[in-house]
Amino acid sequence: MRPSARGVRIDGGRLRARLDDLGEVSPIPGGGSCRLALTDEDRAGRDLVRSWMLDLGLHVQVDGIGNMIATWECADGDPVMTGSHIDTVRTGGRYDGNYGVLAGLEVIETLMTAGLTPSRPLSVAVFTNEEGARFQPDMLGSLVYVGGLGVEEALDTQAIDGARLGDELERIRYAGSAPVPGPAPHAFVELHIEQGPLLEAEGVTIGAVDGVQGISWQEITVKGQSNHAGTTPMRLRHDPAYVAAAITVFLRELATEMGGNQVCTVGKIDLSPNLVNVVPAVAVLTIDVRNTDEILLRDAEARIAEYLTDLQEREGVSIESRRLARFEPVVFDPDVVDLVERIAIEHGHSVKRMPSGAGHDAQMLARVCPSAMIFVPSHLGISHNAAEHTDDADLVAGANVLLDTMWALTESYSSKESA
Amino acid sequence: MRPSARGVRIDGGRLRARLDDLGEVSPIPGGGSCRLALTDEDRAGRDLVRSWMLDLGLHVQVDGIGNMIATWECADGDPVMTGSHIDTVRTGGRYDGNYGVLAGLEVIETLMTAGLTPSRPLSVAVFTNEEGARFQPDMLGSLVYVGGLGVEEALDTQAIDGARLGDELERIRYAGSAPVPGPAPHAFVELHIEQGPLLEAEGVTIGAVDGVQGISWQEITVKGQSNHAGTTPMRLRHDPAYVAAAITVFLRELATEMGGNQVCTVGKIDLSPNLVNVVPAVAVLTIDVRNTDEILLRDAEARIAEYLTDLQEREGVSIESRRLARFEPVVFDPDVVDLVERIAIEHGHSVKRMPSGAGHDAQMLARVCPSAMIFVPSHLGISHNAAEHTDDADLVAGANVLLDTMWALTESYSSKESA
Repeated sequence: MRPSARGVRIDGGRLRARLDDLGEVSPIPGGGSCRLALTDEDRAGRDLVRSWMLDLGLHVQVDGIGNMIATWECADGDPVMTGSHIDTVRTGGRYDGNYGVLAGLEVIETLMTAGLTPSRPLSVAVFTNEEGARFQPDMLGSLVYVGGLGVEEALDTQAIDGARLGDELERIRYAGSAPVPGPAPHAFVELHIEQGPLLEAEGVTIGAVDGVQGISWQEITVKGQSNHAGTTPMRLRHDPAYVAAAITVFLRELATEMGGNQVCTVGKIDLSPNLVNVVPAVAVLTIDVRNTDEILLRDAEARIAEYLTDLQEREGVSIESRRLARFEPVVFDPDVVDLVERIAIEHGHSVKRMPSGAGHDAQMLARVCPSAMIFVPSHLGISHNAAEHTDDADLVAGANVLLDTMWALTESYSSKESA
Repeated sequence: MRPSARGVRIDGGRLRARLDDLGEVSPIPGGGSCRLALTDEDRAGRDLVRSWMLDLGLHVQVDGIGNMIATWECADGDPVMTGSHIDTVRTGGRYDGNYGVLAGLEVIETLMTAGLTPSRPLSVAVFTNEEGARFQPDMLGSLVYVGGLGVEEALDTQAIDGARLGDELERIRYAGSAPVPGPAPHAFVELHIEQGPLLEAEGVTIGAVDGVQGISWQEITVKGQSNHAGTTPMRLRHDPAYVAAAITVFLRELATEMGGNQVCTVGKIDLSPNLVNVVPAVAVLTIDVRNTDEILLRDAEARIAEYLTDLQEREGVSIESRRLARFEPVVFDPDVVDLVERIAIEHGHSVKRMPSGAGHDAQMLARVCPSAMIFVPSHLGISHNAAEHTDDADLVAGANVLLDTMWALTESYSSKESA
């Protein structure tokens, strides 16, 4: 009988120190970081995390899309994998992504230090371009890892600054040779901050994440008639700024009316020529629509499309929609979710089964192996912001749940291999 | 008895050629120009126009804010002045401003060629930064000329690209020595394209402009809570993009409800960080509100302020308003307007007394001397756009009305000097 990992606990000070060290790579005022994918800042963050992986004696492989996977080759068989990302949005916090990666390293170091060897390899993955802030779609690295997007197509993705993803990967020296799609792990579990306000508001420590909201991203281009702001009567206008505004207000009303998990966001609007006294010629805006229920998500998309058609006719403008990303809602493996829930309770924590409102790499891995996620509270739900914060006690609680979940997963789901 | 200028007519081909030559300075696709104030492109345009002024033997003076005034010193007394501007918005047409300046030169050359010497000097002014597209407020040069803004304050104005107006004026070598405020002309009349659709729609050739709409420009800064677009329930959002959109929609409703001459425009919106999956932290937008009636304009401003207060409370955001420009409606000199109307009729043209929806340098000159404007039709009302167009026949008609109006003004309004 293999020794149980029960009772072994991670070193919270060591985890905290690594979070702070990584946070200091390309810091922004207020304690956050800016490491857009495949920039020099991202490279600096990758170099630091890789040095920690190598210090632990892990086998580090980089694949053709830049995913970096460190494996403790302590046993045979497919590894139990954890991981997340270290790229950030422009105004990134210190925990989003970083926490999942560094807690994974902490789990391995804790087990090593305790002299406990699991019955399968353990892996920690750093996936490329999870945020989608520089290259679209988001979760690109894990999507390519599971074969959901061809690597050549992914390498040809163009950044918002015009750069080609493949060129940037070469430039920062993270175009690796490991094949993609990559091998399916035995199981995958990702630890992440909630990035929403619910756990804190309800006083719950651990979220056992049972699925991920579906995501629909569109870019809407409105072309009207640029004109002088003083001399064009209101009735003769074809004003893309007004149309962009009407869409934004409509989305708020739609989400409010649909209720439940439905959220709609316009986060980006660009007017051209964008001058005080000129009715713009063009507005380009993005629409982010999410729901845990695919049927409701499709319904929202249909109602938006209908509204755009009406608006186009009413305002005498042209409206074009381009799909930027579309992911169906994901349902995680109920056994892995149960496992997370049970371990959290054993650790004496309050726990809540909940969907994730944000997209995460785990939803991609769920296509190829049993997967789930563990959430810890985000103060006020603030994320994608330097003020992002999770209490140290919660960070430690989450990492310890991850430790025992990974240990338990090395013991379970072995029917296929042993058959 | 001085010979009358009646019967002398301008050379339409020569005017057309100068318009085209000036339009070819920093051309943009579609036949327009981009000469933002005090850029290298503006300098190139000024250099060209100055060379034409000097070719005509005019006395060219540049004042401390860069206004360039060419005078035919053919007689004693205060000059009858015409003029306009040659700076453009980023997507400028070929006629806005340029037409008024070049028609002024055409009037002088026509009189010289015909051997007709007016009883007062004639001046053609090129005023600095009329558009307000690079420096605010708009009509800055003529405002300083009439003493409405101190030259030191004006020179300290910062461009949207961060440059200081005074530095840019030095850089392009148009920081002149003529004093500002400048001497009041005997009278001022400005010829301009309508930049609106009314003359063409009504089949009228000449607008006798009896006033200018009042203009209120504000910059609104909305600060909310940046957050993850997927995880923040709608009810917990403090979303500046939504607030900017709600303001834009409110302004459309306000203008429609007020009717008459009321127009409202949001031409500029900047979100930060402006990313698809982030509820923005900040939105900065501009509001352009105009009316011919000062009481109605104030009413619109008050209703906007009230709406902003309500919205701030309802959405849990902070909303700050900064005044960018404010000009009361202007009433032109009724005798000069009558004169324009009478001459247009004598020339056999249809004529309409009308307000200007756009701001013009003439409204500044109206503070110091009898002033008015002459409008010619703009095809479809398109302006601030490369597709801006006025038929040659209308360009010639307007310039000929300008000629006889200026001639008549040299003969009139002499009571002060002869007293």
